[in-house]
Amino acid sequence: MRIGILHPGEMGAGIGSALVDAGHEVLWASEGRSQATRSRAEKAGLRDVESLADVTAHADMIISVCPPHAAVQMACLVAGYGGTYLDANAVAPPTAADIARLIGAGGGRYVDGGIIGGPPIPGRPSRIYLSGAGAQHLAECFAGANLECRVVSDHAGDASALKCAYAAWTKGTSALVLAIRRYARSEGVEEALVEEWSQSQPDLTKRVLTAANQAATKGWRWVGEMEEIAKAFEAVGLPGGFHTAAADIYRRAPHVEGAGADAATIERVLEALNLRLHR
Amino acid sequence: MRIGILHPGEMGAGIGSALVDAGHEVLWASEGRSQATRSRAEKAGLRDVESLADVTAHADMIISVCPPHAAVQMACLVAGYGGTYLDANAVAPPTAADIARLIGAGGGRYVDGGIIGGPPIPGRPSRIYLSGAGAQHLAECFAGANLECRVVSDHAGDASALKCAYAAWTKGTSALVLAIRRYARSEGVEEALVEEWSQSQPDLTKRVLTAANQAATKGWRWVGEMEEIAKAFEAVGLPGGFHTAAADIYRRAPHVEGAGADAATIERVLEALNLRLHR
Repeated sequence: MRIGILHPGEMGAGIGSALVDAGHEVLWASEGRSQATRSRAEKAGLRDVESLADVTAHADMIISVCPPHAAVQMACLVAGYGGTYLDANAVAPPTAADIARLIGAGGGRYVDGGIIGGPPIPGRPSRIYLSGAGAQHLAECFAGANLECRVVSDHAGDASALKCAYAAWTKGTSALVLAIRRYARSEGVEEALVEEWSQSQPDLTKRVLTAANQAATKGWRWVGEMEEIAKAFEAVGLPGGFHTAAADIYRRAPHVEGAGADAATIERVLEALNLRLHR
Repeated sequence: MRIGILHPGEMGAGIGSALVDAGHEVLWASEGRSQATRSRAEKAGLRDVESLADVTAHADMIISVCPPHAAVQMACLVAGYGGTYLDANAVAPPTAADIARLIGAGGGRYVDGGIIGGPPIPGRPSRIYLSGAGAQHLAECFAGANLECRVVSDHAGDASALKCAYAAWTKGTSALVLAIRRYARSEGVEEALVEEWSQSQPDLTKRVLTAANQAATKGWRWVGEMEEIAKAFEAVGLPGGFHTAAADIYRRAPHVEGAGADAATIERVLEALNLRLHR
């Protein structure tokens, strides 16, 4: 099959590469994309057709893998595309429904997707949850690639709901642990908290390291994801506050490409979370 | 010493009992308290002087251990008490400052406290953090009891800040895990989430059990604690949303005295969190 990927970030390039390895031709559009994206796409063996118009003209299927805040815009940009459109972004079910309507109105077949875990590496496929009328067919198309497809149901939106629920914990608690450590610092009791945690919550020492690293490297795209989760919770009558707060934390985090999971990163992130900078 | 305890709930009775064992006389006031509280106090070896006025008239020191929402009111009720007043409640530093002013205005010596962990049992003392001018002296008074006193600093409010930071994680994440499981149920993807969690987040299975049990047995008094933590975060410019949301979850939880940490309790709690009941 000819599959278009919009746009090959770390995850998109990984999935594209897995599909190339499985014998598919994978197209992408370099127009307006960064040099880093070009290098990634080239390394993944994707074929550059330059423009989105060329992707939509030639692909049997398009996969959208982008930061959540760009998911709706992406669907708008391919308006009128008549093939299968897999939105694999971390969006709330109501947003997924908006995307489904946009794609459907243009004659395309929308499939809802949610990715859990990192890009595929040998021996550890990416897990892609799929839902909607075309989910089963799509899972069959991907058979043979280093992707573990799981069909949640034939109801579009369920894959997005599952992804929201999953990330609500992983990314929500990462934001929370950073907020707490910052709180303790602001109150001058950080040392006492770190000591108490080391005794009675020993896993939090490592969690803070990981969370600071994630906030500094991926926080910029998690803001939108946290806002989507808050929207998802509120849509079913649950409080959105956990994740509007998490979005706020990631919004404040500094963007440090290549930051380590180390004490220096914790310092940079905690200092950036300080109130004084956001007044 | 003669020490008054207001009011001996599970934690207060445990601390009172530890002080009795260390040779102190511990007073309490039964006026208006429940039969359960009376039984607990009697079992702990506390001496009933019936009225608050009698506690304040005879105690060298008073310890307030009550649900956070009642902490300020408790300080009002002993207005004019001139001894040492340890507020060991889970309140935000700004609330602790209000209590300090009330006690100070009446001529008393306020000490700030925060308890981490459960009531003392043989071989596992309760950990009591203390801060403020009288903290060191108070720690010395308690020496010999099954209580591990730690002086955070001579700044009143620091013990409360530390307690807020600690509970922000433990009780905040318990509310979050319940909200997420409820979200997945509302969206019809609970089974898929439980399956994914069992593979990639194995500790969450046990966390849901514990969290449901806690919500059903102690959630009623954690509402106020979550609100205090939200207030504490906001006072230093951090988002309060994590814990206003957690308060909302505990507010919805059913109160089931003696609930187990089992599937039946998960069911009762998750059903109670349902939107329809709170519209």
